[in-house]
Order: sequence, then C-alpha cells, then structure tokens
Amino acid sequence: MPELRKDPITGRWVIISSDRARRPSDFAREKAEAHPGGGFCAFCPGNESKTPPEILAYRSNGSGPNTPGWSVRVVPNKYPALGIEGDLNRQGEGLFDKMNGIGAHEVIIETPDHSKTLAMLPEKGIEDVLWAFRDRMLDLKKDRRFRYVLVFKNHGLAAGASLEHTHSQLIALPIVPKEIREQVNGAKHHFDYKERCIYCDIIRQELEAGTRVVAENDDFVTLSPYAPRFPFETWIVPKQHESRFEDSPTHAFENLARALKLLLAKTDSVLENPAYNLVLQSAPLQEPSNAYYHWHIEYMPRLTKVAGFEWGSGFYINPTPPEEAARFLREAEIEVAVPA
Amino acid sequence: MPELRKDPITGRWVIISSDRARRPSDFAREKAEAHPGGGFCAFCPGNESKTPPEILAYRSNGSGPNTPGWSVRVVPNKYPALGIEGDLNRQGEGLFDKMNGIGAHEVIIETPDHSKTLAMLPEKGIEDVLWAFRDRMLDLKKDRRFRYVLVFKNHGLAAGASLEHTHSQLIALPIVPKEIREQVNGAKHHFDYKERCIYCDIIRQELEAGTRVVAENDDFVTLSPYAPRFPFETWIVPKQHESRFEDSPTHAFENLARALKLLLAKTDSVLENPAYNLVLQSAPLQEPSNAYYHWHIEYMPRLTKVAGFEWGSGFYINPTPPEEAARFLREAEIEVAVPA
Repeated sequence: MPELRKDPITGRWVIISSDRARRPSDFAREKAEAHPGGGFCAFCPGNESKTPPEILAYRSNGSGPNTPGWSVRVVPNKYPALGIEGDLNRQGEGLFDKMNGIGAHEVIIETPDHSKTLAMLPEKGIEDVLWAFRDRMLDLKKDRRFRYVLVFKNHGLAAGASLEHTHSQLIALPIVPKEIREQVNGAKHHFDYKERCIYCDIIRQELEAGTRVVAENDDFVTLSPYAPRFPFETWIVPKQHESRFEDSPTHAFENLARALKLLLAKTDSVLENPAYNLVLQSAPLQEPSNAYYHWHIEYMPRLTKVAGFEWGSGFYINPTPPEEAARFLREAEIEVAVPA
Repeated sequence: MPELRKDPITGRWVIISSDRARRPSDFAREKAEAHPGGGFCAFCPGNESKTPPEILAYRSNGSGPNTPGWSVRVVPNKYPALGIEGDLNRQGEGLFDKMNGIGAHEVIIETPDHSKTLAMLPEKGIEDVLWAFRDRMLDLKKDRRFRYVLVFKNHGLAAGASLEHTHSQLIALPIVPKEIREQVNGAKHHFDYKERCIYCDIIRQELEAGTRVVAENDDFVTLSPYAPRFPFETWIVPKQHESRFEDSPTHAFENLARALKLLLAKTDSVLENPAYNLVLQSAPLQEPSNAYYHWHIEYMPRLTKVAGFEWGSGFYINPTPPEEAARFLREAEIEVAVPA
C-alpha cells in the first residue's frame, strides 16, 4: 500500500509509492531505454485485455466492454500511484504525519489510433476526451474520500510520458493539493477585498490590453499569463465564471476543444512539436461551487530544465517574456483550418 | 533590464529575464547541442579574460587577479538572470505587480581542473568552495537591497548544467523566495507551540530511529527526509542549531566538506554518477538570527521526470521510500577512503 506523508516543515504531502518501488539499478536502466515495451501497445484496439478492465468507454457501434470499437477509453492505471481500496487510517509517526495512499489513478486513452497525437484529433475527438474528464470527475466525486481530482497530460519523453499512445491521466486524492489550495486561497483573498473573481478581472484586463492574448472564441480566452513560470506557458480560461470544470455548460466543451486544438496546433508549429504538460485546475470536489475560484487549463511546454535555483527557491527564471510568447503564438500560421 | 513579476493569484514571483531572451528557434537549437561551446572552456586557467573580472579568488602563490594560480574563483555570471545596478522601482501594472530585476548572479568555479567533479576534489578543496559561499554571502549581505542569497549547484545536463567545468552559482534576490518563506514560517509555527526548533527535533528522532540516517560526523547528520519529493533526496543538517549558514563556526566547514564528499561519493557509486542539484537553505540575510529555522543542504539527484501531476498539484510521487534510499546509501562501499 502506498503511503501519503507530510513534510512537517512546509506541510507538503508526497506519495511514497512503494508498489512502484524502484531500486537504484532501475533508474539507470530507464535512462537507457527510451520507451520500454518495444513495439507492443496495450492501449491499441485488440489489446483491451492487456489493461485493467475499462471504467468508461465511448462506443458508437454497440460493441461490448473491453473490445475494440471505442473512441475514448478510460482504464485504471496498471501501476497506480495510489490504491483504491481501504481507509485513510491517518496516524502519527513521532513528529511526522502519514496516511494510507488511498486514491484513484486512471488513464484516459484519447483515441484508438496509435499514430495520432491529441493535437491531430478532430475537434469532436478532443471534445470527447473532455467529456470523459467530466464524466470521471462526476463519478469520483461520489466517493466522499476524494477531495480532489487532478486531470493532467504528459506528452513526450521530456514531459514524463512513458507510453507513446496518446493519453491523459487523472489522480483522485484524499486531500486538496498545495498548489490548488494556494490558488483557491489567493483567489478568495482577492474576492474578500474586492468582491470580484481575480480571474474574471484578469480576463477583462488582458482582453483590453491584448498583448498577452493568443486567441479567443465565444467561451474561452487563450493567454500567456503575466508571470509565467515557463517559456510559452499558456492558459485557457473560460470567459464565464465557473469554479468547477465539471459544472461547465454543454456548449463550453465544444469551444474548449476548439481552443485546445488551436493552441496545440500553434505550439506544435512555433515550437516544433515540443514535449508538454497540460493540467486542469478546478475547485475542490467536495466544496460548494464558489464565486472566487475560476477553473482553467494550463499548458506548459518543456523547453527549459528546472534546476537548483527553482528547487531551492520556488522562484522561476523565464527567458521568454509572455508578451513575446503570445505574439509568436498569435501570429503563427497553422496548417489545420480551424473554424472561427 | 530583467523584470520581477508576481503572479497575482499565488503570490509566486518569477524572473522574466529579457536579456537572456530566447526565441522559439533557440529552444530547438539547444535541444540539438548538448554542451554548446565545443572544446573551449572559459572557466579553465589561462582563460580568465573570457569571464567578467573576478569578485573573489583563493590564491596561494601570490598570483594577480584574473590570472592563473587560483584554487577557487568567483565571477559574475556572463548571462545574469538579474542585473546588479539600479533601483527596484516597484510598481503596478493594472492588477499586476512588478519591479526591476535587481540582484546578483555569480558563478563559483570550484577548481581549476576541468577534468574533476566536485565529488573528486579533496576534502580541503570542497571546504574552500564552502568558504567561498560564506565569503560571498557576507559580502552581499552588506547590500541592503538583497534579502536572500540562494547558493545552488547544477551537476550534469539533466540537472540544468550548461557548462561542464564544475561550478556552483548564487543568486542574490531582493525578496525572500516562496520556498524559504514557507520553510521559515513552518518552522516558526512549530517553535511558537513547542519552543523547540523542528529541525533539532527531527535530528533527535532520526538519530534515535536510525532508519533514515545515511551518515553522521561530529557536526553533521546526513539523512533521507521523511517526506522526500524525489528518490534519493538527501539532506545534510548541522547538529548544532544555527539559522544561517554564514554564521557557522570554523570547525563546521571542515566537517561539512567531509559530509558532502562522503554523500557525493556514495550517490555516485549507488546511482552511477547521476545528474543532481544541490541547494543551500539558510535563513533570510537581513533578518536577525533565530531559534526556529535551521540551515541545511538539500541534495536532489535527477532520476525521475517532474510531470503534469507535480506541476498541477505541488504534490510529488516518489517511487523510492526514504528508508530504502538511506539503506542503500548507508551500506554503499565507496572507493575513496574517508576519515571517520
């Protein structure tokens, strides 16, 4: 059983994932093998039995569970960071605090086509992936042990992807993670003083200034944040205030798919198909919807190495001003025709 | 002039380093070139004129500044993340906050010998590097604009080192960085309740349990922290309470060099010469020495990739329990004879 442990100084939690335990020699071997597994892919149609049984699949042809015919398929991670069964069993260990590593770790296989990236899927295909995120969040929310679901995507080796077949992941956690708690607290602080959502304020200011705006459609603004940690870090923010992704109106999914496809096409063009991470930032699952936090997607291409300065300070050095990044992306001519 | 910008939601500062500004094509080119610069090394003796003029050098043979004959040499970074001249000029930009990117960015060249790593230096050589850290911190502290000096080391490409010749760096900042502020606040919180330093408490508990102790000498304990972010993350902590590294007694430098050399020899042996980051964590420069914070060194080998989950949550998945990491390091037989 994995363990959740808390650093007693900073309050930061970590998952000590003993089921995936790795010895020194494993790290050296991994360095040598780029994509372990060779030619076989457990995410390809026909290999459904090589993954744990599916939790969700979108099928249009009436095919049965765990058989080909799906367009999006969600399965438990075969090597989960957290275990789904059991109680938290919070306890102390002298000075320290720990609990059982209870949670869910799922893989969203975004397409049956091994040769496609998320950016290459049609808008409808991307929209289906977004619906799968929502469906899983709504289902996991019913389990009151889970306080947060983080949906994320690692694309490319440098971004931590260990399998090539395009997929996203989600991890349901028994605690609200530090980064989210800080964002929610920061947004609440602004709201307490101004009675306005800080993200709504940012959208207004950015649309007026225009210098950091990459693109916009009826429901979403794509922008370079004012203080990005990474070069070409880009956020997709809904224009309409909503604290939780899973509460978004139906029409938002279509426009989010459009905004995401456009951003990925632009970054693939400008940055030559970079490795990247995508994270969905949404309000905690079990807390009521609120007027101060505003869900959004953060896109972070892996262009620079995070090094000693960043680890030691929590401070980031970004060599590309967001105004320049936004201009490059705004002006990028992309090959795929995207409806306005 | 670089800019310091604050994320209005989380309060996280970033350095937008326009002088090092990079266009999309730069990132692609860097990916291709491992160590740019080819065979020439500006840190080697004889090439002193290829770095900015030295700030400090230890010389035993009476040689003049910026000539060969040094054992440790400190120079300004040729491509500094921050600029040394000017005022902070704090100002708003609508919702946002910024100031001029004022600070110091220096390189500590640890040895004239291009073929050596820090681990390969004799204990006295490592001790001299530590003295150079202290001398620079004491000097930079006189500049009241600087609230923090972060000393760090990137070893190996995967850890962000762009030059091969072994060196450390320091960045003096006009604000106390988030990670330090969190550690100091967390330690103060413990002290306010218990009237004890939390690090002193940890040392006592760890020495008693023994399971996470890697090594120990008269002045230092080397241990795997209870909730490490990374596999084989290891801390070197002084046994005697001291909030600031630069206030350490003379005998501590010799024993710190010994502890550091032993740790690097053990990790080089167990992990096959990994890339790593070292960071020195010490109390803020301009604040009085205190009874609750406790300076220490954090060693983080770069064995795993930080990916979407970590960026989106501030939560870390560590596949190696610290008890196992400590056991591997404790039991490692190293080639270099280290006096007890």
